[in-house]
Amino acid sequence: MENLISSIVEENRKYVSEGKVATYIPELGKTDPNLLGIAMIDNDYKIYTYGDYQRKFTIQSMSKPLTLILALLDNGEKVFEKVGMEPTGDPFNSIVKLETVKPSKPLNPLINAGAIATISMIKETAKYTRVERIINFFKKITHNDALEINEEVYLSEKKTGNRNRSIAYFLKDLKIIDGDVEDVLDTYFRVCSINVSCVDLARIGLLLSNDGVDLKTKKRVIPKRYTKIAKSLMVTCGMYDESGAFAIECGVPAKSGVSGGILATAPSEYGIGVFSPTLNKSGNSVAGMRVLKELSNKLDLSIF
Amino acid sequence: MENLISSIVEENRKYVSEGKVATYIPELGKTDPNLLGIAMIDNDYKIYTYGDYQRKFTIQSMSKPLTLILALLDNGEKVFEKVGMEPTGDPFNSIVKLETVKPSKPLNPLINAGAIATISMIKETAKYTRVERIINFFKKITHNDALEINEEVYLSEKKTGNRNRSIAYFLKDLKIIDGDVEDVLDTYFRVCSINVSCVDLARIGLLLSNDGVDLKTKKRVIPKRYTKIAKSLMVTCGMYDESGAFAIECGVPAKSGVSGGILATAPSEYGIGVFSPTLNKSGNSVAGMRVLKELSNKLDLSIF
Amino acid sequence: MENLISSIVEENRKYVSEGKVATYIPELGKTDPNLLGIAMIDNDYKIYTYGDYQRKFTIQSMSKPLTLILALLDNGEKVFEKVGMEPTGDPFNSIVKLETVKPSKPLNPLINAGAIATISMIKETAKYTRVERIINFFKKITHNDALEINEEVYLSEKKTGNRNRSIAYFLKDLKIIDGDVEDVLDTYFRVCSINVSCVDLARIGLLLSNDGVDLKTKKRVIPKRYTKIAKSLMVTCGMYDESGAFAIECGVPAKSGVSGGILATAPSEYGIGVFSPTLNKSGNSVAGMRVLKELSNKLDLSIF
Amino acid sequence: MENLISSIVEENRKYVSEGKVATYIPELGKTDPNLLGIAMIDNDYKIYTYGDYQRKFTIQSMSKPLTLILALLDNGEKVFEKVGMEPTGDPFNSIVKLETVKPSKPLNPLINAGAIATISMIKETAKYTRVERIINFFKKITHNDALEINEEVYLSEKKTGNRNRSIAYFLKDLKIIDGDVEDVLDTYFRVCSINVSCVDLARIGLLLSNDGVDLKTKKRVIPKRYTKIAKSLMVTCGMYDESGAFAIECGVPAKSGVSGGILATAPSEYGIGVFSPTLNKSGNSVAGMRVLKELSNKLDLSIF
Repeated sequence: MENLISSIVEENRKYVSEGKVATYIPELGKTDPNLLGIAMIDNDYKIYTYGDYQRKFTIQSMSKPLTLILALLDNGEKVFEKVGMEPTGDPFNSIVKLETVKPSKPLNPLINAGAIATISMIKETAKYTRVERIINFFKKITHNDALEINEEVYLSEKKTGNRNRSIAYFLKDLKIIDGDVEDVLDTYFRVCSINVSCVDLARIGLLLSNDGVDLKTKKRVIPKRYTKIAKSLMVTCGMYDESGAFAIECGVPAKSGVSGGILATAPSEYGIGVFSPTLNKSGNSVAGMRVLKELSNKLDLSIF
Repeated sequence: MENLISSIVEENRKYVSEGKVATYIPELGKTDPNLLGIAMIDNDYKIYTYGDYQRKFTIQSMSKPLTLILALLDNGEKVFEKVGMEPTGDPFNSIVKLETVKPSKPLNPLINAGAIATISMIKETAKYTRVERIINFFKKITHNDALEINEEVYLSEKKTGNRNRSIAYFLKDLKIIDGDVEDVLDTYFRVCSINVSCVDLARIGLLLSNDGVDLKTKKRVIPKRYTKIAKSLMVTCGMYDESGAFAIECGVPAKSGVSGGILATAPSEYGIGVFSPTLNKSGNSVAGMRVLKELSNKLDLSIF
Repeated sequence: MENLISSIVEENRKYVSEGKVATYIPELGKTDPNLLGIAMIDNDYKIYTYGDYQRKFTIQSMSKPLTLILALLDNGEKVFEKVGMEPTGDPFNSIVKLETVKPSKPLNPLINAGAIATISMIKETAKYTRVERIINFFKKITHNDALEINEEVYLSEKKTGNRNRSIAYFLKDLKIIDGDVEDVLDTYFRVCSINVSCVDLARIGLLLSNDGVDLKTKKRVIPKRYTKIAKSLMVTCGMYDESGAFAIECGVPAKSGVSGGILATAPSEYGIGVFSPTLNKSGNSVAGMRVLKELSNKLDLSIF
Repeated sequence: MENLISSIVEENRKYVSEGKVATYIPELGKTDPNLLGIAMIDNDYKIYTYGDYQRKFTIQSMSKPLTLILALLDNGEKVFEKVGMEPTGDPFNSIVKLETVKPSKPLNPLINAGAIATISMIKETAKYTRVERIINFFKKITHNDALEINEEVYLSEKKTGNRNRSIAYFLKDLKIIDGDVEDVLDTYFRVCSINVSCVDLARIGLLLSNDGVDLKTKKRVIPKRYTKIAKSLMVTCGMYDESGAFAIECGVPAKSGVSGGILATAPSEYGIGVFSPTLNKSGNSVAGMRVLKELSNKLDLSIF
């Protein structure tokens, strides 16, 4: 397996130069474009790694399936009264359908509008703020107590996040967000800015691949149904406007982020995290997708 | 003329009950629905009034042609680099075309997006804030030094104006708004909340009908071209999604507001202000439009 | 006046090279790009001409206000049950709002969808087909019995008119078109292909400028109200997505066609036809618009 | 297994009354609303049936994954130069994105625009027309030589199919359809009108579930990759605007049709056909979906 992983990574390293590091969050633009790493965990909790797998990058949209799960744990499926389950043919930061489709709600929790709505439903407690609860949840499912927010990226997102701010106020106007908009946005920007590594992603992927049972502790952390919800949404909407093509080519539930990471989960088999910061026009890591496709083909991971 | 005006008002008073007072700004919902008033000034500066013409109401969208003119006075026609001149078939508070049409800018200065963009271009001086400059300009063109903001309506708009907030942050993301978004919005909400009467509107209308020369002082206040810009936009976009029908039925440049006022200007003839707070589905005063249509027919005011 | 017209034309002749002859109807692409002509008639029925004013070109969209008037003569204002009166911010051949706005009808009679719907309402008689009735009406209002269809252009439009065909079948699906779709389309393509000259356009413009009274025969041909409908629509929607800018710059009701002609009508003053086949991106004749703007400024023709 | 199937069908029979038989194709409206049937085939080619499984109904949109496969067999993956692979948040018969998204092509082969485009790419031979080739392909993969077109439904669709006609002419204008539009549409209407039973659907589903190897003949009929393309598209786009929810609830690649049938394929396990003509607002069979969901839960068929 180690040989397989290393040879796949090396064969696809050339694709690093086909994409560009995201710059719309200025702080992200500073990343070294040549990074490429992978971590993969099997059902024996054996971990395989290669390349820049220890490198930290911000979780960005890869947080979206997880904040959805936490919102489901908090509220049950009435979450879906305020956000849909359906894929969209529009861009991830689109606002159009909130105006044109009635009744209006974000089409799914993996686009920005849906993720912002979902985060607004996560509860605060006497002891923990919403952000703290989310980070604690991420720590629990990654077994990584060292997770923390990348302050530079957070401040950069907060400063330049006017499109997300526009979306959030639209959601407020639609009464989809109940609480204070700036507070919800602050949570959203902070959560997107949590630093993770490929290993963290692989652990999350393994948890999902095992329907919510943590193979390290042998304990159920998430109800099976919520993991199925997350995985099916990752297939239909996880890779922006390449989700359909990625389902065909790779066939593994996955969620990408503009930092260049991809969280993938091969049901009953592996949790996988890959990272390479150069993105194609759709916002997906070029080399990361290539590595996942070849891994899927070699190990016959497609669910289809 | 007094007889004509009073008979037209009385004949159309019944239409007051066909509309509803706007409630989306909660404070507006408290207005007495039975009010109906008119003021009209001719080229001899003779004023004709009837009904509740002294009643105060907030200027709302009727401010939009005026803030456009002030932005033109401040910046010249490079205003139109950031906002278009074309009518739109979309609702006044629509955000869709900002996303779908490239390059993106508000289609015209009389929809909310365009008015917010326009206000952001009005300059502040060492002595006066943007709001103060706008109010001073309104005082000058109405000859009414007593103009002031209705604080209750302002606070109500500010509190509930999330759709406008969404539009403004979208404009910020598009780099159409340069300055601080909340500051621009605060100006927008304050300006919309300036109390006026039918007489104030009629004076503004007369100024426009005389191509920018103030008949009281015999001085030019606005360049002719800017008044033509304002009047042609009032015809193509002044009455929300009834602008086309109103051009046919009445044929006089006009701008309505959700408070129930209508500012009208019959070129070379009259300035007119009408007020009746009950609106139709398009957001225009039902009785106000009826009065203007009949006045236009009786006095042959249509420009077509 | 002759001097004025000739000097304006010569000064603006240079703009001929700033546009391109339309090629989406292949037959139109064969036109000599250097043509430029004008005809203008005053209330004494005196005609002023210059340049290529005798040149024939197809009437194209300039037919739309006229087929609207004939549909109004046939059906009265229930025409507006099936087509609106409002300007649109969408392209002339757009189909989007037919799907997204409910209840669905074309926004106005001067966009393709609206014109096709309008033509479908023109009646056939025992003696005359719909096309014949339209041509007879055009002959009557131009005093030109020699009007005829340009067969090459007609066949070219019919062959390549799939976008219009798409629109027409959508209208059929919405039950806005009652009759046979291909028959309505055939009429539409034939009517667009009627050859006219600047003189024909000027005569039509004069009729509209005099509210429907023919100054040659002193007889009323069209009810005043229908001419006001046509003129106000020409202002709000006559120049494609430059209608707003043209209202500001020129201020005269006008309708352009992709052949390069513009039909203009200065209320109570002049009927005007200009022709120059090179178009800007919006589909309007570059030199034609320049000539009309300068004429309006020099003769103070703006209605605003 | 027989007991399981019959008990699931009987428990969900009550949902038959929650939907309505489709009437937009008038001929479909004549179907008995109380029908409910299922057929299921396992890898031993053993068939399980219950209820009205022999009843014939038209294949409608269930043909779309199959015509895609035939187009792929004819052209290879350059099919995807003219039609995308991505889910859409718009209705199945939407035309909007063809106008608003550039470059324009149908988002996927399972919406009407995409299916019409796909069918236009299926080749004709000296011996067989396009329709004949499609029917022959359907006969081959169903092992049912008796398949034939329901003439009443075909004529009904052809007569009322103006929305599809509008879509097809738009595709022609975009040069996505090369050939004669009416011929392509005729093929489309005929193919949608092929009569099938639950048994036919189950056989197709089994072929897809086995990656294109026919378990009856042990021969490969379709390349594995094309079956993966079909199955992944069925998950992301197979159940109209309930595809996302169905992926969560049932998790089995499926394609519904307005006749009330659903073609389902549980990878490596079963081919399934269900039929019940009463549909919900999304156009999916209410009882049919319920039966599939329960079957998936009981037999743990979800791919997620």
